[in-house]
Amino acid sequence: MGIIGAGPAGLLLSRMLAVQGIESVVLENRSRDYVEARIRAGILEQHTVDTLREVGMGARLDREGLEHDGIYLQYPGTRHKLDFPELCGRNVWIYGQSEVVKDLIAAQLDDGPPLLFEVSDVQPRDVDTDSPSIAFTDADGVAQVLECDVVAGTDGFHGVSRPIVTAATDGQLWERTYPFAWLGILADVAPSTDDLIYAWHPDGFAMHSMRSPSVSRLYIQVDPTEKIEDWSDDRIWEALATRMALPGWELQTGPVTEKSILPMRSFVSSPMRHGRLFLAGDAAHIVPPTGAKGLNLAVADVTLLARALVRLLAEKETDLADAYSDKALARVWRCTHFSWWMTSMLHTHGDDFDAQLQLSQLQRVCTSEAAARELAEMYTGLPVAL
Amino acid sequence: MGIIGAGPAGLLLSRMLAVQGIESVVLENRSRDYVEARIRAGILEQHTVDTLREVGMGARLDREGLEHDGIYLQYPGTRHKLDFPELCGRNVWIYGQSEVVKDLIAAQLDDGPPLLFEVSDVQPRDVDTDSPSIAFTDADGVAQVLECDVVAGTDGFHGVSRPIVTAATDGQLWERTYPFAWLGILADVAPSTDDLIYAWHPDGFAMHSMRSPSVSRLYIQVDPTEKIEDWSDDRIWEALATRMALPGWELQTGPVTEKSILPMRSFVSSPMRHGRLFLAGDAAHIVPPTGAKGLNLAVADVTLLARALVRLLAEKETDLADAYSDKALARVWRCTHFSWWMTSMLHTHGDDFDAQLQLSQLQRVCTSEAAARELAEMYTGLPVAL
Repeated sequence: MGIIGAGPAGLLLSRMLAVQGIESVVLENRSRDYVEARIRAGILEQHTVDTLREVGMGARLDREGLEHDGIYLQYPGTRHKLDFPELCGRNVWIYGQSEVVKDLIAAQLDDGPPLLFEVSDVQPRDVDTDSPSIAFTDADGVAQVLECDVVAGTDGFHGVSRPIVTAATDGQLWERTYPFAWLGILADVAPSTDDLIYAWHPDGFAMHSMRSPSVSRLYIQVDPTEKIEDWSDDRIWEALATRMALPGWELQTGPVTEKSILPMRSFVSSPMRHGRLFLAGDAAHIVPPTGAKGLNLAVADVTLLARALVRLLAEKETDLADAYSDKALARVWRCTHFSWWMTSMLHTHGDDFDAQLQLSQLQRVCTSEAAARELAEMYTGLPVAL
Repeated sequence: MGIIGAGPAGLLLSRMLAVQGIESVVLENRSRDYVEARIRAGILEQHTVDTLREVGMGARLDREGLEHDGIYLQYPGTRHKLDFPELCGRNVWIYGQSEVVKDLIAAQLDDGPPLLFEVSDVQPRDVDTDSPSIAFTDADGVAQVLECDVVAGTDGFHGVSRPIVTAATDGQLWERTYPFAWLGILADVAPSTDDLIYAWHPDGFAMHSMRSPSVSRLYIQVDPTEKIEDWSDDRIWEALATRMALPGWELQTGPVTEKSILPMRSFVSSPMRHGRLFLAGDAAHIVPPTGAKGLNLAVADVTLLARALVRLLAEKETDLADAYSDKALARVWRCTHFSWWMTSMLHTHGDDFDAQLQLSQLQRVCTSEAAARELAEMYTGLPVAL
């Protein structure tokens, strides 16, 4: 089969299918260096870790990943730990998406199915037949056609796959843009916290994450129209220190090695399949980063999709393939709602009534077992099939 | 002491204080008939029932009130019972606010402190001293002054008390109007359901409540600009039947005896005290009717206030009086958030992204024990002091 896009969704799908004896070719229009350098989310749910281990991708994750048993929720005067094992018996892992991608690419190039970088003019064809193909130009400029049983569109929000599905199915799109963005930095400094801090502050949200014992990842909410050049390192550290201030606690600073502004958007495309073209990951949906559902949702998609494709291609049964879109979308909407909810609870936007609702909700999550458990269950991840 | 307003908050406060040996006079600018005929909410939390029983107001409530062990949440194709005793060990009671008021007035006129109807020109004075008073004109047109230790402003959203507190304290007001209203009917027909139904539907929210084994109370979401004369009984029954439709279930209809449109608003005023003037109930806050928190919040306010006033007047200690506003407001915001949340989850407003979030949230509440328990705990009511 043909897989368009060598992000975590496409690479993992290729590997899952290889384990089941199904061949694939992965086509990527960027270079290996570019793909490996993309900084994305870094929080893995239990099912994501389980899945990576099952396909032999657990070695470095188990060595370098940081298992976390909770998060801190903060609002002025209070920093409260949500204890995940106590609340729901599951943990999360800190391991950057770029590391997951590096592991998958290394394995793929080592003993996996073909993975072609820097292809161009990728075009799925005849996806409404049982003999689709993908036309593309390879890195040497040679026009090629890949004949396949199935095409997986794991080519992200700007990829060529989704518009084909949408047009052919008269599909529906939902989009929500948020009136704020995240300014994120990577810094060479040991994290000032053992677990992630999600902080509500009148100036806006702030977050303290990490990538390793010596690298911190930090975010502040900014206006989406802000320019990165207006934010000196000093100004960023000052905003972080103000928004996460707590008596007796100090934020350690260090050299900033990466700095960017992320827009925040919710996006869902339905259905996630037309004929022999199946969408997975960002090609079909985007969530805002709060709650770190993007990568985990992509892994859940391809887990469902791999099962459906094994059933379709090895057992010649269409039931799981026919059910894929609805099954995936139920989970997509659940996570879309959770991401929207976390985002809505933590970001200020100038409405003081909403600010009071946010504070009351945060206090409730920090004092009610039921409310805390609901957050913990969603944050650590639901089963792949709801 | 002087109590302005003979709604449930003022009447109950007077009775709670009387039980503790503190005298009061209740002033009401409407007639007894008018006050007793006001149709309001009809769902009592556990703590409200406990409080009414404690002050001797439980006899008719225990005889005629309907104890309910849950509600139904409905969305197209699904009607799910939330079992309150299983989820949180508490129930709710159906007993109209107008019945609570009738019981309180009858008891007050029988053996309680003075209760004067049809007074006018009510004006609290010198509330920043230890000797406040209330000037008013009695039902016979005679100008009077009531000298008191403390004034309770339980005179509702349009009363004279709140503006005095707000002006003197440079207080803060929060208001949110919603882009929909409830058209409510009372009908002489046995309820078609054993428990309340809260139904999400693309046409808008619908609700089936009841007042007795032979009287149903039903609501549909309408645009706030709708005119009641455009809604014939037939049109209302049709909308109800459509929005609550479920295979195998039929909505019984009957003569409509009351019909009105209720606007929906959230409102919070802070602080709830200035000097010797204390606000409670609708004078300080309004919630939309979804979740039925209004009356219960008023009862919680006066429970806190009665304790504070006994401490102030009988024990000459100011600590509880000084803490009253903050303590009451913590609960007010909790219930304001819950009412906003129930309202936001159940009412359509033309945005299809929000509709999908609502459906995902409803499905989650119907399948997750944690999410269901959070709703059940809030719906059946939190302890008076959080």
